[in-house]
Amino acid sequence: MERFDEAWQLLAKVRAKRPLIHCMTNYVTAGDVANMILAAGASPVMADGIAEVEEITELSQALVLNIGTLKAAAVDAMLLAGKRAVELGHPVVFDPVGAGASRFRTEIARQILRDVRCTVIRGNASEIGVLAGGRTRPRGVDADERELLTGENRQEQTAAARKLSRETGAVIVMTGPRDLIVDENRTCLVGNGVPMLGRVTGTGCMLDGIIAAFLAAGQDDGGEPRFWQTVYAVAAAGICGELAAQKTLASGGGTGSFRMYLMDEMSNLNDRQIKEEARIEV
Amino acid sequence: MERFDEAWQLLAKVRAKRPLIHCMTNYVTAGDVANMILAAGASPVMADGIAEVEEITELSQALVLNIGTLKAAAVDAMLLAGKRAVELGHPVVFDPVGAGASRFRTEIARQILRDVRCTVIRGNASEIGVLAGGRTRPRGVDADERELLTGENRQEQTAAARKLSRETGAVIVMTGPRDLIVDENRTCLVGNGVPMLGRVTGTGCMLDGIIAAFLAAGQDDGGEPRFWQTVYAVAAAGICGELAAQKTLASGGGTGSFRMYLMDEMSNLNDRQIKEEARIEV
Amino acid sequence: MERFDEAWQLLAKVRAKRPLIHCMTNYVTAGDVANMILAAGASPVMADGIAEVEEITELSQALVLNIGTLKAAAVDAMLLAGKRAVELGHPVVFDPVGAGASRFRTEIARQILRDVRCTVIRGNASEIGVLAGGRTRPRGVDADERELLTGENRQEQTAAARKLSRETGAVIVMTGPRDLIVDENRTCLVGNGVPMLGRVTGTGCMLDGIIAAFLAAGQDDGGEPRFWQTVYAVAAAGICGELAAQKTLASGGGTGSFRMYLMDEMSNLNDRQIKEEARIEV
Repeated sequence: MERFDEAWQLLAKVRAKRPLIHCMTNYVTAGDVANMILAAGASPVMADGIAEVEEITELSQALVLNIGTLKAAAVDAMLLAGKRAVELGHPVVFDPVGAGASRFRTEIARQILRDVRCTVIRGNASEIGVLAGGRTRPRGVDADERELLTGENRQEQTAAARKLSRETGAVIVMTGPRDLIVDENRTCLVGNGVPMLGRVTGTGCMLDGIIAAFLAAGQDDGGEPRFWQTVYAVAAAGICGELAAQKTLASGGGTGSFRMYLMDEMSNLNDRQIKEEARIEV
Repeated sequence: MERFDEAWQLLAKVRAKRPLIHCMTNYVTAGDVANMILAAGASPVMADGIAEVEEITELSQALVLNIGTLKAAAVDAMLLAGKRAVELGHPVVFDPVGAGASRFRTEIARQILRDVRCTVIRGNASEIGVLAGGRTRPRGVDADERELLTGENRQEQTAAARKLSRETGAVIVMTGPRDLIVDENRTCLVGNGVPMLGRVTGTGCMLDGIIAAFLAAGQDDGGEPRFWQTVYAVAAAGICGELAAQKTLASGGGTGSFRMYLMDEMSNLNDRQIKEEARIEV
Repeated sequence: MERFDEAWQLLAKVRAKRPLIHCMTNYVTAGDVANMILAAGASPVMADGIAEVEEITELSQALVLNIGTLKAAAVDAMLLAGKRAVELGHPVVFDPVGAGASRFRTEIARQILRDVRCTVIRGNASEIGVLAGGRTRPRGVDADERELLTGENRQEQTAAARKLSRETGAVIVMTGPRDLIVDENRTCLVGNGVPMLGRVTGTGCMLDGIIAAFLAAGQDDGGEPRFWQTVYAVAAAGICGELAAQKTLASGGGTGSFRMYLMDEMSNLNDRQIKEEARIEV
């Protein structure tokens, strides 16, 4: 388990450093992403106008690129911010929402991958598969259930993620019933999380923000801990999902309560809980 | 009561089929609309870039067009998606938010009605009245209280809705204290719902999504059940409002709690409850 | 305490008159702003297309301008609406989100101040400081903690706010641990509020909406009560924060619960509570 057991106290670092996370994201979940970043202890700045993105990136400590509702006119701003973040050595988290669902999204996602060296790419099995050159038309923005990470297709999915990691240099996070995290040499499954996370919009986008906050807080950690920092962030988010589901069940609530508790749990989470509750399989 | 009593089990069908609902909607309530569609058991995809809307429509099973914050530059994308949806035989739910509040909105709404054969048009008394050619300047995006569905003006409002239905071929949903659903031959009042639904933004937009999900799930039902499917969806949404208001009252909450409970109730609702609690007047 | 003690019953007036508040705001918090305006008893209309903003302003009783995610192409619409609102004598609340964080934002904010005579300008210490001509590069959109209103820098901050008020004719609201409200002659500190307000996105934007609703409701009050109406609105928002924090603590919740309770408390608040709980220091 290499670096996961070390006492990173990454969440405590987020709260101590309060890194500024520049988010260029979709209008559907932007508010929830901002609130989740705040709940984790970091500070969000949502800015996507081409006139200012470079300056905002310079003020920030990490960048999130999410193409959930991207328009053609906004692509250049995303590329500009991405390139500036890479020059500055900032972690860049890229979410290719719906890659494969339209030629436009697939092309834009590929262009971002060509032009911006991303630190982490987070998507579902469809999106990662498309970007790794496999399939081309998934079902909408959610992973088709046939594409879930099951025993049958796990090998294929891990291969796709590894291929994408090799081509991009990024850590790949393929979220699903279990979350697969892969880089060129390492593979890890995170078993935290609950099905209800799929019944609230933007839980993937919120995870983008959490990963970015954790990477920003861990910037000065020695070595190449990006992989394990990402695993740690994914586990943290999944644990919040589990705790929120318990509260939802206990209160007789539904997806509305769950969404609120998810935010509550992240704002109340600590590193000890993450270490105790994380279900990591290497 | 014609078709309402039949055992449609429409909500169960939504959950079994998980139809993909393409939403071109406003940025104010997009997140709540997505979450409400998920709560009902369907799957939302919010996409409005002209470069991709046709493809997204092709992947989907229904389309929602909502002009809540529409800009001139985005009209063409809406028309393109609408036409493609009609070609494919998808249900199209159109919400002429604020029609009459500005010449721009009124004209855009009329253009959509000319170019796209909508399945359902949902608005308040002002919006429907304007589109039926009656009045021209309502008060903002909410129905003026003087325009509420009361005994005095009910006949006039029914006539306006019927006229719009005849001109467009759509089922008309005029929401208010009681919701009026009209097509060329039928008229129905749904008595479910509570005043607090008017104190949370986007409950109309959320209803658009619910109607679209129900229509998509009921696509293969024989005959012409669009009218009754719509009535069923309107009743379901109103019942969630009633249940949410009860929980809000019991917990001493306000409009914030109510908004959360509304989502909870939809995610926990079942067809039996809809049938038992629906207050339909034909 | 001059006018604060008079029985304004401003919140009751909001609920009786239900003024329509035209908001041109950012896509991150637009939904929360609309819901907060509704919770206060007013009615929001979010519209920012240049084709219609003048007409929407004409329908409305107050205007909120917020540059949180402003693009260059949308500046003209904001100026147009602002000028029309001033012509009509409507209160205009301006929120220079992130002024100083990029040259673009600083310039746009200055242009709005040149072209539109604002009634109230609400920002944090960084933003107000930049617009008063002081510093130029704050940290993101939130006030740096070093800039909080403490004993040490209070004099400097009051001077900056006074300078901006003199130059613009506006009432200046500088929010922080304690909120400073200043006009040319008056200074007031409001001690209501809790730190958790800084851990939810958009609480500043929501305050913009509350101030606008209170100003619109108090339009016909004699004299020059804008200053005290603003103080009253700021106190009301802070009291909601305090009550929401108590409920959050009692329920073991976090920032998600707090955000919901904030809306609850505003929807349940009354003038008597504001008067009893307000902590005003002149």
